[in-house]
Amino acid sequence: MNEMVVNSVGRKIPKYIEGIGELKAFQGAFAYKPVGEKASLKISKVTPKDNKVVDNIRKSLELCEIKDGMTISFHHHFRNGDYLVNMVVDEIASMGIKDITIAASSLQSIHSPLIEHIKNGVITGIQTSGIRGKLGEAISKDKILKNPVIIRSHGGRPRAIEAGETKIDIAFIAAPAADKYGNVNGVEGPTACGSMGYAMVDAEYANKVVVVTDYMVEYPACPISIPQTLVDYVVLIDKIGDPKGIVSGATRITRDPLELFIAERASEAIIVSGLVKNGFSFQAGTGGASLAVAHFLREYMRKEDIKGSFAAGGTTGYLVEMLEEGLFKSLLDVQCFDLKAVESIRKNPNHIEMSASFYANPHNKGCVANQLDIMILSATEIDVDFNVNVITGSNGVIMGASGGHCDTAAGSKLAIVVAPLLRGRLPIVMDEVTTIVTPGETIDAVVTERGIAVNPRRKDLYDLFKEAKLNVVDIHELKHIAEGLTGKPEKLETTDEIVGLVEYRDGTIIDTIRRVK
Amino acid sequence: MNEMVVNSVGRKIPKYIEGIGELKAFQGAFAYKPVGEKASLKISKVTPKDNKVVDNIRKSLELCEIKDGMTISFHHHFRNGDYLVNMVVDEIASMGIKDITIAASSLQSIHSPLIEHIKNGVITGIQTSGIRGKLGEAISKDKILKNPVIIRSHGGRPRAIEAGETKIDIAFIAAPAADKYGNVNGVEGPTACGSMGYAMVDAEYANKVVVVTDYMVEYPACPISIPQTLVDYVVLIDKIGDPKGIVSGATRITRDPLELFIAERASEAIIVSGLVKNGFSFQAGTGGASLAVAHFLREYMRKEDIKGSFAAGGTTGYLVEMLEEGLFKSLLDVQCFDLKAVESIRKNPNHIEMSASFYANPHNKGCVANQLDIMILSATEIDVDFNVNVITGSNGVIMGASGGHCDTAAGSKLAIVVAPLLRGRLPIVMDEVTTIVTPGETIDAVVTERGIAVNPRRKDLYDLFKEAKLNVVDIHELKHIAEGLTGKPEKLETTDEIVGLVEYRDGTIIDTIRRVK
Repeated sequence: MNEMVVNSVGRKIPKYIEGIGELKAFQGAFAYKPVGEKASLKISKVTPKDNKVVDNIRKSLELCEIKDGMTISFHHHFRNGDYLVNMVVDEIASMGIKDITIAASSLQSIHSPLIEHIKNGVITGIQTSGIRGKLGEAISKDKILKNPVIIRSHGGRPRAIEAGETKIDIAFIAAPAADKYGNVNGVEGPTACGSMGYAMVDAEYANKVVVVTDYMVEYPACPISIPQTLVDYVVLIDKIGDPKGIVSGATRITRDPLELFIAERASEAIIVSGLVKNGFSFQAGTGGASLAVAHFLREYMRKEDIKGSFAAGGTTGYLVEMLEEGLFKSLLDVQCFDLKAVESIRKNPNHIEMSASFYANPHNKGCVANQLDIMILSATEIDVDFNVNVITGSNGVIMGASGGHCDTAAGSKLAIVVAPLLRGRLPIVMDEVTTIVTPGETIDAVVTERGIAVNPRRKDLYDLFKEAKLNVVDIHELKHIAEGLTGKPEKLETTDEIVGLVEYRDGTIIDTIRRVK
Repeated sequence: MNEMVVNSVGRKIPKYIEGIGELKAFQGAFAYKPVGEKASLKISKVTPKDNKVVDNIRKSLELCEIKDGMTISFHHHFRNGDYLVNMVVDEIASMGIKDITIAASSLQSIHSPLIEHIKNGVITGIQTSGIRGKLGEAISKDKILKNPVIIRSHGGRPRAIEAGETKIDIAFIAAPAADKYGNVNGVEGPTACGSMGYAMVDAEYANKVVVVTDYMVEYPACPISIPQTLVDYVVLIDKIGDPKGIVSGATRITRDPLELFIAERASEAIIVSGLVKNGFSFQAGTGGASLAVAHFLREYMRKEDIKGSFAAGGTTGYLVEMLEEGLFKSLLDVQCFDLKAVESIRKNPNHIEMSASFYANPHNKGCVANQLDIMILSATEIDVDFNVNVITGSNGVIMGASGGHCDTAAGSKLAIVVAPLLRGRLPIVMDEVTTIVTPGETIDAVVTERGIAVNPRRKDLYDLFKEAKLNVVDIHELKHIAEGLTGKPEKLETTDEIVGLVEYRDGTIIDTIRRVK
């Protein structure tokens, strides 16, 4: 068995993994000091006579000199409507290529055909923010993948790419619109997805870049989100995705009375913190109650005539309405979750597209997450040390996504988790989460229907909440209430086999995911 | 004396220059094959607590750990209204720093105070597209600068920076508008200059980046031309430039009857070439007749109902009108020459800001110059091999700028020089130009008031012009007519001392500038 070290959140991390290399154990949210230089690229030369348009994906793979062992990258702006990952991997498989690593910004249920390619040895490594559906199950339970999957946050991924830890041999860009010379935007065409934020870093650092589109526009594409200067080949195909799958489910305010109740309590706490004032900034993660918090803050901002600076992250029509109402000066957008957001980023110059590095990379000269005042987060599980899990279910199966969770928790002045005490028959607050994605030191409070628990590191916040007579409770008390209702959850049984590594945004390992028994 | 090689345009190039290094001799417009990797940067780390705003330029220089021998970069969007270069160099001088190289995208008359700093040894090297006024005279006649000045084109400069040949230690960005975290745009504030195209590459590749502004906007600046992720420090000062100096003189259509006559002949030739059709692209350099060509083409486009693809380069109100009229789909803009262009790039999404690398770098994956159909160029001198000089006067003094001349000549399908046969009492067409900036192999024709000379490489063009009964003459005949009017120009007398190196866009040396006797 591998030599292990215990990291600063108490998890055992191997020092080395075959096929991955040496691992650095997590030592605290801002402990790691990066060294060395960013990755550099080969110098190119393209003359006026060169043509970038090639007939099909196969041809582009041949021109990129695809071979065994390469790393191929994808972005997930099409979410569950993405056709490109499966098309490209099918083609790679049909060429007899093996031992490919897929470096995707995220993977969805639609990508379950990858299971066969993994079993056949075409894919031996995956790096992603999240995995959903059967693919996650097969990786977690059957350990079909040769190397552990590396889970990275939306800030950690561009960091890894820029640092040269993820060396992308070929980046595939699913382009809603592109011109013959490779300029890309996300706001035109039948599969318009808005921001191209995740794909920007791939284009900048990949050795070869292939743009695949089903909507070729006259030169030059306008706007230009990914420039021709980074693109090697352009492929026109019939259909790159299903527009219906692009729209995320989690974009409407919840109607669930319990979630609304929690959201209202969270908004009260945020207001009491004193941060909601002119020029403040805000982000709400997807899911359940978090977007509803925006709804209550909006009412407060109207009443008190407060104008915020920016709202960030993945954007929805709800945030667009707040922008248009003048409640925020701008939106900083790494991905659009619905068509209203797509329309807005196309038309409104104050709705600004940002790259994933600009959004959340801890190792550039300053990301947007650093400028966040308030961050509303969800949680699958949270432990009594405020560590949060958003990647595995309590059954140990990978089913979620790291997303910007740990990035924004670390960057924001106030990071608040909103969650019901129970989900189904499962407690949310517990002694130990299944997998740590976000360290408790970066979470300031958790708001449930049974009270608000404040991280002991934030005595200042505790005093403010107490003074305002908010229902402040100890997090152990929340755990106790939850367990009283459901019984103490059974300890998950896993083998020693590591099926996943959860990388913190700085490149250190915060947790491992073990194979479910 | 240095060992010399004769390059492919017949000029003697030293193999090595002390203080500069090994030189590569020019061997043809597309002959050089770049090797190796792009420059890479140190990985950074900025935490949410870090503040980028510093009190003054002195403090920013201290934080950047300025020391002897460093390279400091500047951009020239403020043209003759720029205050920043002098301010920064004064400060560097007052700190007792010596042996600085100034890597500017261009220098103007306003920068003549640099003469004293050169004489005092503060500045020992200059890299620039052009130099005007007393500074050019002092360098050319008095050889005040320790190392030869390196003249680079607008495409050659980003190439050199990306290749790591120009290693910028500190980039200073004169920012019309900036926020506290370093996001910059050029479209707001009292010294709005529009596109920030030249500065973008500096920000991307400099070790340290300092933004200096006199107009601090609320976070986040919008639009964002240079992102916070590249910026180390932000300095707020009273005045970064004189808006009057930003506007270039060369932005109105000439009223000179001779220049109008030449422009009309040029437009006829362009139309005969068959390139003026739907989807065509176009650029006109600054100066004299070239902008007037746009005027005649506009009339033709209206009459024939032709819609172009894009116009590129530095932009003027005249091109903005053509955009607004629908004659072009978009403008691709590396610098704005007048306030109408600034206003347009601020408001019109089809007026697209581009970096100098995107514009003209021959060693990325494809620059805009490669996509140009028609390029109208000016010339200070042109020889019987169609080699063009735009950098030195016939007295051998550096007084112009390389600009995008050689980049667009090489990239475009049709590169036409428009020039009167005489300027004052000096012939424009001659046996040998004082300095070669653009090789004749990339020039297709020269249009004068006494006829059009076609490069023998373009027999196809010659036939078209002949068939259309244009006034085609041999270039030797043009030279003969010119000399008949002025007498044969006296051979310029220079010493062997090299005061300047003219780099072709690919990094090879196309000519040297010798000290004037």
